[in-house]
Amino acid sequence: MNATHRSRIAKIREKLADLELDALMVSIQENRYYLSGYTGEDAQFDESAGVLLVSASQLVLATDSRFDLQARAEAPDFEVVCYRKGLEKELPAIAANLDIRRLGFESVRLSHKNHAAYAKALQTVSPPVELVPTENLVEDLRKTKSEEEIQATVDALRLAEKAFSRVVATIRPGMTEKQVAWDMEKAMRELGAQGLSFPVIVASGPNSALPHAIPSDRRIVEGEPLLIDWGARLNEYCSDTTRTLVVGKPKDPFQNVFDTVVEARDRAIAAIRAGASGTEVDKIARDFIDKNGFGDKFGHGLGHGTGLAVHEAPRLSPIKDDLLEAGMIVTVEPGIYLPNWGGVRMENQVVVIQDGVRVLNDPAPFNPCIGN
Amino acid sequence: MNATHRSRIAKIREKLADLELDALMVSIQENRYYLSGYTGEDAQFDESAGVLLVSASQLVLATDSRFDLQARAEAPDFEVVCYRKGLEKELPAIAANLDIRRLGFESVRLSHKNHAAYAKALQTVSPPVELVPTENLVEDLRKTKSEEEIQATVDALRLAEKAFSRVVATIRPGMTEKQVAWDMEKAMRELGAQGLSFPVIVASGPNSALPHAIPSDRRIVEGEPLLIDWGARLNEYCSDTTRTLVVGKPKDPFQNVFDTVVEARDRAIAAIRAGASGTEVDKIARDFIDKNGFGDKFGHGLGHGTGLAVHEAPRLSPIKDDLLEAGMIVTVEPGIYLPNWGGVRMENQVVVIQDGVRVLNDPAPFNPCIGN
Repeated sequence: MNATHRSRIAKIREKLADLELDALMVSIQENRYYLSGYTGEDAQFDESAGVLLVSASQLVLATDSRFDLQARAEAPDFEVVCYRKGLEKELPAIAANLDIRRLGFESVRLSHKNHAAYAKALQTVSPPVELVPTENLVEDLRKTKSEEEIQATVDALRLAEKAFSRVVATIRPGMTEKQVAWDMEKAMRELGAQGLSFPVIVASGPNSALPHAIPSDRRIVEGEPLLIDWGARLNEYCSDTTRTLVVGKPKDPFQNVFDTVVEARDRAIAAIRAGASGTEVDKIARDFIDKNGFGDKFGHGLGHGTGLAVHEAPRLSPIKDDLLEAGMIVTVEPGIYLPNWGGVRMENQVVVIQDGVRVLNDPAPFNPCIGN
Repeated sequence: MNATHRSRIAKIREKLADLELDALMVSIQENRYYLSGYTGEDAQFDESAGVLLVSASQLVLATDSRFDLQARAEAPDFEVVCYRKGLEKELPAIAANLDIRRLGFESVRLSHKNHAAYAKALQTVSPPVELVPTENLVEDLRKTKSEEEIQATVDALRLAEKAFSRVVATIRPGMTEKQVAWDMEKAMRELGAQGLSFPVIVASGPNSALPHAIPSDRRIVEGEPLLIDWGARLNEYCSDTTRTLVVGKPKDPFQNVFDTVVEARDRAIAAIRAGASGTEVDKIARDFIDKNGFGDKFGHGLGHGTGLAVHEAPRLSPIKDDLLEAGMIVTVEPGIYLPNWGGVRMENQVVVIQDGVRVLNDPAPFNPCIGN
């Protein structure tokens, strides 16, 4: 078995022993990949490319005929079981074969409907199988990244930055937000991205005051903020960066807002180290923004983990406190949003190391003013 | 209120009365849009752009600050409630305000974890609120389409067909499956698609024997089957079509397989009418393929509904029997898959009418041989 998967499965098996579970059913797509290498994707929320069943001594990947060959090729350490009439019908036999009494499941992914159907089906096994909700068993492992995972993230980020440089050189007043978003997507895909981490955000002028803006037909105007938030997926890992630009000469209060955001970000980054609290790091950026008179204009959390998913643990947030550990990759993305004027957000990705932080973005100085 | 939404909500309210529910919590993205016009998207399986609460007299859209302005703009008939610390914290107050005792929820979407959290939170209301699982309350309405929905689907299909014509004219031996898939995606997007219905499938030679093939770096070879399955999303509605081509002169047994699949499809289409059984329509294609000696080479169902989701009810399937009704849009997509050689699938989209069927695809004759 691949050493990476062996080590991850060993850790899951320790947790199973601690929780007195005979096996874990893994239905979250990223968790399946993390433990097996299987890349089958759930096409819709109500569709599934299969589940892993990890017991103390056995590894099963149950899926349907569409994914059978792919599962065998990608997950050679798992016994692939192909179900014809849905998992519900086959689960009792699989559980009996694996001699399972207590079966953990991922409560954040399993629907109420499937839980009820599986629980009922498992009552038919003798002795009956108990379904036990679990949370974060695999996600907790995914929080800290190996060197290979950090490198995969850096590769995705370099690709995304290259796409940005290419597109920025072509941005002119009069282009629409949608055009720029599509140019960014094309550039990433043509540079070899397997996909986007999330739909590209391009927001100009007042639209940039919405942290979650959707690219529109609004045309770019000189002197206004132009916010671009984008990420590439490469080798399954996600990048996530934001830059705010101005075409031509920035109008007030852009420079003041921009400088405040960048300094808030860099102060927060300087405070990150193994053992730091996510809430304290968030507070450093938030307090600086507050001190500069924009206290109520930064309405979201400071950052989040990235990896196989673009949003994962840990959070840098005023609400939920996560302890930072070496190997965690997080975004640091303060913003100031002034309704009817616009907003500035500047986001880097960093990896926590023992006594500090390593910024993953290109270290070249960033000048927000373009086209002058 | 928009007449379309008014009529849909009236039908949901009738169902609530039948089920003795005081309200329905709608968390499926397509269902939210169908009843309200709100297009907020759930970015990951564990993220939500909000829920609708439909009671006999009130309409609430609960979401977080990222979607607040969008929700107000798109769903003017709903009272938008913005939660700060997650729905779990706010749901008791919302339920109390709406005077709810029995609250229906969508059991196929709500996770076991959120169900447990909401159920616990709702116990704090006086009198306590009971959560009641429901299935298909909105989906059953979505199965039959209005003229506007049919037109939206036709518009998406015309766009997808135009993209296909453009790309087919450029296909040459030596191009990779991935290149063709990306060209298809670019063509759809540049013609104005809001997105894809699903990732484009391009499968050549032996790869086309996998009904669920993922585009690879395999290069197109003259004489082999080249299967393309693609769809565009436009105005929220999905198209879905498959064509199988050959570059140059087809090698045996292509023509025989192709003719069998096309006739199986067209015989099935000829049997569709309001009142027909999905399983019987499936059987007509399946029997014809069987009679021609390929009985075990057609391993999937004949078709599925399309609409706001690319896979929705009804099914044309040997396993699950759905009654066809006027206004339903379904795909008809038999295939014959010969391991190590390749496969042929030909898929049209049709709308069921009272005494027959209307094929939505371009009626021009299709010649699978290109580049001669």
